[in-house]
Amino acid sequence: MSLSKNRIKYIRSLKEKKFRNEHRTFVAEGAKLVSDLLATCRCQFLAALPEILAAYPGMKADEMVAASEGELAKATFLKTAPQVIAVFYQPDLADKPLPLHGRLTLALDGVQDPGNVGTIIRIADWFGIDQILCSPETADIYNPKTVQASMGAIARVRTFYGQLPSLLSGQGDLPLYGTFLEGASIYSEPLTTEGVIVLGSEGKGISEATERLINRRLFIPGHPAGEVASESLNVAAAAAVVCAFFRRTKA
Amino acid sequence: MSLSKNRIKYIRSLKEKKFRNEHRTFVAEGAKLVSDLLATCRCQFLAALPEILAAYPGMKADEMVAASEGELAKATFLKTAPQVIAVFYQPDLADKPLPLHGRLTLALDGVQDPGNVGTIIRIADWFGIDQILCSPETADIYNPKTVQASMGAIARVRTFYGQLPSLLSGQGDLPLYGTFLEGASIYSEPLTTEGVIVLGSEGKGISEATERLINRRLFIPGHPAGEVASESLNVAAAAAVVCAFFRRTKA
Repeated sequence: MSLSKNRIKYIRSLKEKKFRNEHRTFVAEGAKLVSDLLATCRCQFLAALPEILAAYPGMKADEMVAASEGELAKATFLKTAPQVIAVFYQPDLADKPLPLHGRLTLALDGVQDPGNVGTIIRIADWFGIDQILCSPETADIYNPKTVQASMGAIARVRTFYGQLPSLLSGQGDLPLYGTFLEGASIYSEPLTTEGVIVLGSEGKGISEATERLINRRLFIPGHPAGEVASESLNVAAAAAVVCAFFRRTKA
Repeated sequence: MSLSKNRIKYIRSLKEKKFRNEHRTFVAEGAKLVSDLLATCRCQFLAALPEILAAYPGMKADEMVAASEGELAKATFLKTAPQVIAVFYQPDLADKPLPLHGRLTLALDGVQDPGNVGTIIRIADWFGIDQILCSPETADIYNPKTVQASMGAIARVRTFYGQLPSLLSGQGDLPLYGTFLEGASIYSEPLTTEGVIVLGSEGKGISEATERLINRRLFIPGHPAGEVASESLNVAAAAAVVCAFFRRTKA
């Protein structure tokens, strides 16, 4: 059995959100990532080098085929052909987020780079944050680049897409954090163990409508004042710093 | 004047380290990044849309041409053609690093992804760290992906390539930090304002020869023990967290 042209075409079509939504599936590549996802996601289709199928007898999918390097090279989204390509069913999305009280939640307000979104999901997973809210403009978590950058964390961290202003309003005095140049230093500001941390888009930061709801403004002090230096941290780097300081509060 | 086929060929050849070394030049794209670099690096050649040349009268290069969108699209390494592509001379490298005493230095031990290296340079710049040592296996800072991810910080942070074990040995009791699963929590460990922070490769971590020199082992506590979660942080995310905690010590 081999990877047919039709299957290659199907896999490649899943680069587009339209087709991912239509089939309710997504692609993951590489033995490590695919094995991780197999623990939690149902696999529709898996193609791998014969020696990989032999080495990972636990790999189970609705349909499995042995494929040649050349076939995998035609199907892959990566530069170097992986040893395994798999198509997974998207987990059923909850119809509403988990309660925002009693936990830390990240909210992505228009983070558009799929790699950044995947890296942030991995960061959330590392720091024990189990939920991420995403504005509609935020990159799709099933984008192949997001899936690869998340390193399997997309199967563990719940994501929910919706309008942030409506998701975040009416939460009483729940702390809603955002980072701003004139915010309080995260090095000394007391942080809470519940609330929402809003991360803005790479170019435009946090949108006006969401900013209005933020009641705790934070800042990550960098280089000494007055020095010429980078104007900002990459959003995933900022996410890592913020999550670490919140995690330290719990420690 | 327009962007000639020969010039397009030259720009595209600079994707390869071999040709970058031969010409001692590198490529940067996009009006923001190119303007940033023009402040510190000599520009050999600059091609831009006519309206950009008009809008940025301060842009100065040894040779400047107006180019069409189609020409820029042929020359670019990006998915979407930028409005400006420029070729810069590599700044002359120092023949030895700055003294390791009296400052914080990052050391990259085989960080192979060019995007990670660029992001780490930007992080160092943000946190006021002015020097990065790179092992020979570390991605080239003039790789187009590194240049783009650094957002201009490559012109401000000094980098030096060499064998880390010889660069780091003979430093007396200078703190040499690395992150390890069995290290001391960075949330509570007292940190110094001088020393070297070693960051390991994405797959293999810190090499044995370098690890032997490390005298302070740190750990970034993440998810609660026993929970299934991501096995590690992306190296750039770890760099951001570590730099922030060192910066906090100075605050």
